[in-house]
Amino acid sequence: MGAKLEKIRAGGVCTPKGFRCSAVSCGIKTPDSDKLDLALIVSKHRTVGTAVYTQNEVAAAPVRLSLQYLKTTEPRAVIVNSGNANACTGPAGIEHARKMASATAQALGINRREVQVCSTGIIGVPLPIDRILPRIPELSEKLSEGSDDAARAIMTSDTKPKSIAVKLTVGGESVRIGAIAKGAGMINPQMATMLCFVTTDAAVSKAELVAATREAVDLSFNRISVDGDMSTNDTVVVMANGRAENKPITRNGEGSRAFRDALNFVMLSLAKKIVSDGERVTKMVEVQIRGAGSQIDAERIARAVANSKLVKCSWNGEDPNWGRIIHAVGYSGARVKEEMVDIYFDGVAAAKNGISTNAAIGDLLQVVRKREFTVGIDLNIGKGAYHVYTSDLSPEYVEFNRAEYAAHRQK
Amino acid sequence: MGAKLEKIRAGGVCTPKGFRCSAVSCGIKTPDSDKLDLALIVSKHRTVGTAVYTQNEVAAAPVRLSLQYLKTTEPRAVIVNSGNANACTGPAGIEHARKMASATAQALGINRREVQVCSTGIIGVPLPIDRILPRIPELSEKLSEGSDDAARAIMTSDTKPKSIAVKLTVGGESVRIGAIAKGAGMINPQMATMLCFVTTDAAVSKAELVAATREAVDLSFNRISVDGDMSTNDTVVVMANGRAENKPITRNGEGSRAFRDALNFVMLSLAKKIVSDGERVTKMVEVQIRGAGSQIDAERIARAVANSKLVKCSWNGEDPNWGRIIHAVGYSGARVKEEMVDIYFDGVAAAKNGISTNAAIGDLLQVVRKREFTVGIDLNIGKGAYHVYTSDLSPEYVEFNRAEYAAHRQK
Repeated sequence: MGAKLEKIRAGGVCTPKGFRCSAVSCGIKTPDSDKLDLALIVSKHRTVGTAVYTQNEVAAAPVRLSLQYLKTTEPRAVIVNSGNANACTGPAGIEHARKMASATAQALGINRREVQVCSTGIIGVPLPIDRILPRIPELSEKLSEGSDDAARAIMTSDTKPKSIAVKLTVGGESVRIGAIAKGAGMINPQMATMLCFVTTDAAVSKAELVAATREAVDLSFNRISVDGDMSTNDTVVVMANGRAENKPITRNGEGSRAFRDALNFVMLSLAKKIVSDGERVTKMVEVQIRGAGSQIDAERIARAVANSKLVKCSWNGEDPNWGRIIHAVGYSGARVKEEMVDIYFDGVAAAKNGISTNAAIGDLLQVVRKREFTVGIDLNIGKGAYHVYTSDLSPEYVEFNRAEYAAHRQK
Repeated sequence: MGAKLEKIRAGGVCTPKGFRCSAVSCGIKTPDSDKLDLALIVSKHRTVGTAVYTQNEVAAAPVRLSLQYLKTTEPRAVIVNSGNANACTGPAGIEHARKMASATAQALGINRREVQVCSTGIIGVPLPIDRILPRIPELSEKLSEGSDDAARAIMTSDTKPKSIAVKLTVGGESVRIGAIAKGAGMINPQMATMLCFVTTDAAVSKAELVAATREAVDLSFNRISVDGDMSTNDTVVVMANGRAENKPITRNGEGSRAFRDALNFVMLSLAKKIVSDGERVTKMVEVQIRGAGSQIDAERIARAVANSKLVKCSWNGEDPNWGRIIHAVGYSGARVKEEMVDIYFDGVAAAKNGISTNAAIGDLLQVVRKREFTVGIDLNIGKGAYHVYTSDLSPEYVEFNRAEYAAHRQK
């Protein structure tokens, strides 16, 4: 964190000036429960905004609609439900997403296209739209400056809400960035939805906001996506309303680096929280590759290791099994000289030149017994480097993910 | 199976004329136990032979050595140990593999280069060569026409030995093909070793044997390799000694199709046994893709679905969760029109045109409760087709794979 970046305790999306939030319980997650499952985030004032959506060819209805709206209009509000992804729901799904946008726009007195619509939850089940629409006016009436309820309302299998806010100085003015996020089923978001909503009162040009968002997503949420794949619903929305009244930040202009560092910090903090709170996760592991033939090779290796079922099982078992790691390095598709590969657990060398160092097993065990550690892999053939954040794979994860659809159909 | 193909009860690698086998216990798997862990397979007569090895950049020492020998010499014997992969063992590993070949050649009175060396087991731990070498003369003395012990000696986490033999007629002569195999840790052999040894008394040209082997491996073992990746040690060796005295089978010549069908049947039978006996596997699922834009797209989709952790978890939970399946279809990298996708469980349509058919949940549950079923996915945009065989992912699998290395080091 740069010298001028200050973390704000208990901050969230309402920490920046001019943003408000609310949440209600509609019974989408669980009928007849009081679990919050519908949230609204709004800027009182006009904004510039941008979003990054899933790359999945099967994109949920709200993603398709939001993308269409974003092409012509700056987003000023987000309406989001949990408990149902509104994905694989056909033309009715699009209609439902559009109704959520319209009802929100009507309640707020803004244009429908200024609303981004998000959903997360089960796939392939019709959205219970009749539970959602009647509650939207209430959301508008309840808007306040606390974002805790919204952070809770977007949770699915997360065990805790995820919020952050920071303050920095741009051209002598205090500027704030706030965000809430919800996690992936596990570290590999290809099969679980990641949502993140970022607000800032910075005055920032559209071009700079788009570039800064792309950079921050690449360094954070794309580093926990083990295959570079995303779910049907993954969405990051960033809105800036300029209420800090700083001199507008432009691309490569004054304050641009500080703003980007702050945005990177915000997204990386939430990305790490998502890994750490992954379903039944007991370890957070940073896989650091260096010395690869190219950056692309380094990324291939990092993702192969981070995604290997057997490597993840060994971490769950607190087993410093470097053989399984070099195995995954070997099938990554990258250029590898086995006799050059070094593997470290938090700096303790387990293998050098492709063979065991005979490091004291106790030293290696001390590392893998920690909740967080780093696996360093040096290919020693070039300058390619990359890193990803990943988790272990636990029996409880499998247990947790065994049944869902039939249970839902039989409700 | 063709009309002329006959399965031979209790057959194995010694069913074809002129092949013999033996196995001993050296204490590699477990010191001081009587578990068989070293085996020898030999043809009394000269052979033509071929082999397919792992594509992993990190290849075990015996694989490197065997590949080198195969380049100049027809393989006539296989020496194989379980319990230790002799992988990531540096120059000493190569020296140990060479010693296994030399000792075998000496005991048999053949050339060292006529021996294929295979190992399977833990990676990165020196091979206990001093337990192996003294036992090789005994293996040679014990050679007999039963292959059960050899099939047992190559097992690692397999729960049963895997053998097969068939008889067919080529140009009026009876010809036999026999094989033994050992399984992968689970359906995804990228991280576990698959070994298969095939013998035949057919007279067959080298060119035909190489082409037939490539075809059979592509239709069997490559269809259970979820990433197309192989372990450091995967090896298929095929030896033909011509003792059936049929008119030699040549490429596209008489008997070629029948021979290939038989070889395909042998390898596919063993491949399915490997899936079905995968670690803690409770389901065998055939993923059948049709209507894709190309065969490559069909393969991408099949492997994405078969490799998805969350899809595998749902099968373990006997949950007909087509949403997770279409999700994996979407991120496979293939061209997909979501609104065209149909998904079937054993012919019962769960989704048509990308949305739920509202098939009776009971009908879908009836399928996924079976031990074996087919997931059919029709993209409805082209003629690309592909299929793979895969398994579920169980909590017990993770449990089983949690610890290995430290336990081994602490023994």
